[in-house]
Amino acid sequence: MNGELMGDKVILGGEAINELYSTSYYGRPRGDTLELSLIEAAYLLERAKITIILDQNSLGFEEFFKIASMRTENFELKYIVYKDLRERGYYVQPSVTDFRLYPRGGRPGETPAEYFVHVISERKPLSLAELTLFMETAENVRKGIVLAVVDEESEITFYEVKRTMMKGNMKLVDHVGGEATLLEDRVVIFDPKLAYSLYHNGFFGKFLEGRLQLSLVESAYLLKRKIIKIVDRSGHVLSLRKFTEVATKIEPTFRRKLNVYENMRNNGMVVKTGFKFGSHFRVYKEIESMERLPHSEYLVHTIPADHVFLLPEMSRAIRLAQSVRKRMVFAYTKDKKVQYVDIGRTKL
Amino acid sequence: MNGELMGDKVILGGEAINELYSTSYYGRPRGDTLELSLIEAAYLLERAKITIILDQNSLGFEEFFKIASMRTENFELKYIVYKDLRERGYYVQPSVTDFRLYPRGGRPGETPAEYFVHVISERKPLSLAELTLFMETAENVRKGIVLAVVDEESEITFYEVKRTMMKGNMKLVDHVGGEATLLEDRVVIFDPKLAYSLYHNGFFGKFLEGRLQLSLVESAYLLKRKIIKIVDRSGHVLSLRKFTEVATKIEPTFRRKLNVYENMRNNGMVVKTGFKFGSHFRVYKEIESMERLPHSEYLVHTIPADHVFLLPEMSRAIRLAQSVRKRMVFAYTKDKKVQYVDIGRTKL
Repeated sequence: MNGELMGDKVILGGEAINELYSTSYYGRPRGDTLELSLIEAAYLLERAKITIILDQNSLGFEEFFKIASMRTENFELKYIVYKDLRERGYYVQPSVTDFRLYPRGGRPGETPAEYFVHVISERKPLSLAELTLFMETAENVRKGIVLAVVDEESEITFYEVKRTMMKGNMKLVDHVGGEATLLEDRVVIFDPKLAYSLYHNGFFGKFLEGRLQLSLVESAYLLKRKIIKIVDRSGHVLSLRKFTEVATKIEPTFRRKLNVYENMRNNGMVVKTGFKFGSHFRVYKEIESMERLPHSEYLVHTIPADHVFLLPEMSRAIRLAQSVRKRMVFAYTKDKKVQYVDIGRTKL
Repeated sequence: MNGELMGDKVILGGEAINELYSTSYYGRPRGDTLELSLIEAAYLLERAKITIILDQNSLGFEEFFKIASMRTENFELKYIVYKDLRERGYYVQPSVTDFRLYPRGGRPGETPAEYFVHVISERKPLSLAELTLFMETAENVRKGIVLAVVDEESEITFYEVKRTMMKGNMKLVDHVGGEATLLEDRVVIFDPKLAYSLYHNGFFGKFLEGRLQLSLVESAYLLKRKIIKIVDRSGHVLSLRKFTEVATKIEPTFRRKLNVYENMRNNGMVVKTGFKFGSHFRVYKEIESMERLPHSEYLVHTIPADHVFLLPEMSRAIRLAQSVRKRMVFAYTKDKKVQYVDIGRTKL
């Protein structure tokens, strides 16, 4: 079958509708012609299913590839991803976010697409704003979002992106109040009773021989709930404001972390540091006792609302989370609401 | 035994030399007294081995801890690490980098120390310059370097830091030259013979149905060695300088990566992208054939000479590398020399 290269389309005659569209869902019928994107056309050209004519000459694959790469942004990457999906038996159609992907067994025109696929080079930074826009676009039409990240060697990694809620089963416990001391950069409770209660009933802090060591966010949280008061080494009481000021000096992202910490705690989760996993928090839905800590299901990393993901870094965080059987969740605060985005590798 | 708190020392009488130093190597004999650092003193006070007197009053642990924390920088962190090491049977003495650590079975004064230990909070950034200084200090006296990173919950992770060489067993192969095309942001060799030779004999690029896809650093490397020439989509030949310019636009860290890539390739290693592991490169010492890729031993991430490590990020990189049984190596170029630093978790 002959197609004509016209701008960023290849146009085939009516017989292609039967041959290519009705059986395999390549292209889109337009009246009695079939319109292919340059990506679809390259795929069919490489498989010798069509020839492509420009100025009465039939184009070789290399020649067509170079032309197409000049006419379609990101052509090479999109081609790599399109090909991969097609070869694995998926039907794929163009969409605003690059591709619509149909579920296995589904057919364009009959079944709704399942995912919007967005193709991106590992080298290209991805802003949270952009990602949010994809998510909203997809949510509006009830599709999932898949990022197809193409690395230097043209290997593709697929990530599924979805909003999530962080809800646990823990009840907030009342504690008898008491005093905590801010040392140089950490907070310690020397009172053994209070230490015991916060640790064993509230799952706060780290118990070190009768003393309880609190993180800065834990301290602020307990201070806000009036369960502890915090004094400095000279015995002066610190207000929440003053403590926040000090904590922000020690840890510049303190406020951002506190917002997320509070939100998760108030939603019944137990939140501990995720340092060993390179994230801000590891999170438990439920803990029965500190002696028998269950597996934590999530790693949560807080990001600012204007965050820009570097994909190698994102890839590393997710890969690490999955290597320890946890979900990777990015948390940010926008318009005073804490939002959670779960990003995980998927094989499709 | 009574000790007197004086400045940032606790001074004990001569009997302490026998009781504490000769048997267990606490403190340093000074004439007929024994001098303890506040960290050693806190450890012995907590164990009720000594009492500490200030102004004729005996100090409680809490009281002493608060005072010590005001007189010794980083007191709490150092105490946590000191205690951990001591409790696990190590002899520890103060040093310029915080502690000297003696090998198991070794004794201060008899055996040389094995490591310099540097204690650092996960929150504190660590500049490469600082790290290099530790390494040099340690190398001069033939010690290893251990970083003891203390997280929010006072958990310690130990990292061993050492310089390393990257040397492989691959010989540089001569290839028949040919042409490669720079598409939008990647380089493709359409000539099947050249593609085959570079892939199967040189282990360059990624083979995609007769075409070879080269990364930007691979392309520049082959261009520099005059094995390929690179043309743009209109067929214009690109000089190395022009190509470098274009590549740097696509990938801002291109030059940094190329330096390290070249150095490793010239030293007989096979270097491929490490994107899936969140690092610039994964590196093979030897490859027999692309069909039977061996396990790559290293992940190499390039950093600028003025790099500042964020410890959660560093922790993540190392943890990920070790989860896939690879060593994590950071590479940088200083005074035109490529340097490699291997950082790995160690249990001590």
